[in-house]
Amino acid sequence: MLGEIIAIGNELTSGRINNTTSGFAAHHLFEAGFDIYAMHTIGDTPALIGEALKRALNRVDFVLVTGGLGPTDDDLTTQAVSEALNRPTMPNLEILSLIRQHLDAHTGQPASSLDKLAWLPEGAETLNPGSKMAGFQLIHGGKPIFFLPGVPHQMKTLLVEQVLPRLATWYQGKQLTSVQRVYKIFGKTENEINELIDQLKLGDCATIGYYPVFPDVHLSMILRGNNSSTTESRAAETFHRIEEKLGTLIYGRDQESMASVLGTILTKQKKTFSVAESCTGGLVSSLITAVAGSSSYYLGGVTSYANSMKHTYLGVENSLLEQFGAVSHEVAEAMVRGMQEKSGADISISITGIAGPDGGTTEKPVGTVFIGLAQKSGIEVSHHLFSGTRYEIQQLTAQTALNIVRKQLLTT
Amino acid sequence: MLGEIIAIGNELTSGRINNTTSGFAAHHLFEAGFDIYAMHTIGDTPALIGEALKRALNRVDFVLVTGGLGPTDDDLTTQAVSEALNRPTMPNLEILSLIRQHLDAHTGQPASSLDKLAWLPEGAETLNPGSKMAGFQLIHGGKPIFFLPGVPHQMKTLLVEQVLPRLATWYQGKQLTSVQRVYKIFGKTENEINELIDQLKLGDCATIGYYPVFPDVHLSMILRGNNSSTTESRAAETFHRIEEKLGTLIYGRDQESMASVLGTILTKQKKTFSVAESCTGGLVSSLITAVAGSSSYYLGGVTSYANSMKHTYLGVENSLLEQFGAVSHEVAEAMVRGMQEKSGADISISITGIAGPDGGTTEKPVGTVFIGLAQKSGIEVSHHLFSGTRYEIQQLTAQTALNIVRKQLLTT
Repeated sequence: MLGEIIAIGNELTSGRINNTTSGFAAHHLFEAGFDIYAMHTIGDTPALIGEALKRALNRVDFVLVTGGLGPTDDDLTTQAVSEALNRPTMPNLEILSLIRQHLDAHTGQPASSLDKLAWLPEGAETLNPGSKMAGFQLIHGGKPIFFLPGVPHQMKTLLVEQVLPRLATWYQGKQLTSVQRVYKIFGKTENEINELIDQLKLGDCATIGYYPVFPDVHLSMILRGNNSSTTESRAAETFHRIEEKLGTLIYGRDQESMASVLGTILTKQKKTFSVAESCTGGLVSSLITAVAGSSSYYLGGVTSYANSMKHTYLGVENSLLEQFGAVSHEVAEAMVRGMQEKSGADISISITGIAGPDGGTTEKPVGTVFIGLAQKSGIEVSHHLFSGTRYEIQQLTAQTALNIVRKQLLTT
Repeated sequence: MLGEIIAIGNELTSGRINNTTSGFAAHHLFEAGFDIYAMHTIGDTPALIGEALKRALNRVDFVLVTGGLGPTDDDLTTQAVSEALNRPTMPNLEILSLIRQHLDAHTGQPASSLDKLAWLPEGAETLNPGSKMAGFQLIHGGKPIFFLPGVPHQMKTLLVEQVLPRLATWYQGKQLTSVQRVYKIFGKTENEINELIDQLKLGDCATIGYYPVFPDVHLSMILRGNNSSTTESRAAETFHRIEEKLGTLIYGRDQESMASVLGTILTKQKKTFSVAESCTGGLVSSLITAVAGSSSYYLGGVTSYANSMKHTYLGVENSLLEQFGAVSHEVAEAMVRGMQEKSGADISISITGIAGPDGGTTEKPVGTVFIGLAQKSGIEVSHHLFSGTRYEIQQLTAQTALNIVRKQLLTT
């Protein structure tokens, strides 16, 4: 079953906003067994909107349209669709009455500026009438078209809660079974991974994709078939061979992040963790705490950006800072020792380096990073040289630091 | 001058990877005076690639194609283009000789696995022959087509360094002048801002867009004309009226972030800053240090995720934690006092709250946040209740905290 996605908005074609909703929709539709023939992004131009929608209806089984449903003057989707499909707009009384309950903050009167939201093309059915979110469905020529708001969290909510269940019922029994898995790999290029996988001679049994997703590489495997149990056993065998081949190069899969994988290991080993970071400026800590439940293993950390902070909060001697400089093996060691002792964590890391764009020297160029690792058994410091922009160096450093902890815990 | 962008890759149509390169290209092309008619994303399917390219060549003046140029087996763009445009592939000797210098890490032999990269459609001209990046240009039917790798940093480098200068020469003198400005606003909805702008009755002098870009709203203004000096003076007048109307609701413009704006103010006032954060877990610190040069005003911070860290690093009394709980007015106050005194910063903030999804109670539901602000003149604590996912609550809290500091500094 084939679908097309049309995203609407001048903010997208002028490149001011990145379109994140189409990818989200494609991902969930794909997982539900639907293929996406194409995704289009066009401006708030009624003629273009109508043309794209009519062309899509001619070649695929369903269409998802996002954006341009809001109350502001640049929201033109509903009008364009009404004209293109020759379905005059009619007021939806349910929505109108909901809007009339909403008082204008300034005048205390019903907010008539929102009335526009209640006028929908003839035959439209609202997707979630009880909510405050725009979004409706039209069946045109026997094919469903879904119109969702462009605001990412509204679009995502309606897609998952309304569109996917409706499509599943609509097309019940017509889908192929598909099994998809994504392996997340850090520390090898896509070409190096391709060469390793080629050695397995997997043939045509799976569609394989190699995707550099900075700072990782994602290895995607898709297996499809008519019969769900044979497809799944074929998938299990393929996945097993890949995992055997790549070993700990694979740090996680699917929705896992380096930080979530590390969290799982720390939880399992009942260990606590703390971080002293300088050039990553809180990024490592932020990645860790983006994971729900991280408070059960993460104690916290210090962002010792200024030298005074390294001394005051981590107990790094000023003489050390003067003699070796803040970016040095010695200071990384002192930082992690101070962090671990004072926080009482089972395992701690320290990071000191030069993220750039300024601050590099011939001896210590931009990208120079020292990472300290402390456990009760002792301290190790490693030296790295990353390249890229400030953003890239910070991301590579953070991912490397988390990976060092992951590997250390896996071998103990 | 109209262009189209075609992004190729199954990783995009299956939604596993978000397409960030098309938006980047659209942004820079738009700024250079070119309009984007449409952006398409299609899979690694040769027939689709050829069809999309031919259709684009029929309706626009230039085409940008990204992705599918790599060495791996799923990279099919070059072959598809060769067939669609009837231009057989030929080996490019310059690229071939560069590849032959590249030795395979395992065998020590020239890496023949990369040879594929040297075969280009007849008439192709490489975009940057000295570099290791794939990318070429074809003139077909008098229209330029640019083929760039899908890897974001390579694509972006080639776009800026090769494509934009080539297009500018190609179309010299045919562009309209355009002036674009984006105002970044935090704390009002797009509809509220639309109502304020409507009061100015700007008419048709500018194309205005309202875009919720979580956690902000972006207000985009585009003015176009044949004559650059009249367009610019029209723009200046329009911008002036908007800035007068919205005042400090606008925190920044164009590429500025809340953290970069705050950095500019701190630099101007020669003040130093430090942060004690709990539920945002390092996010505030990370946002601040993403800005190059932040070391001149940012001392650093403490992520006191566990209560023990609040006591050890910030001097919060255990009795306070027991009596009022970690998420309380009293603890926020003690955190920020400890932070400011020990770090010696001119201004400090503290953040303690419940980001969820767990940990909420009837009295203190998920989203409850206390933010402390300390200057030498005293301490203030504010109470907030945010809603959304863990990610959203963390982002809203961080942006609110930075905005509190910004507003405080603007009034002192």
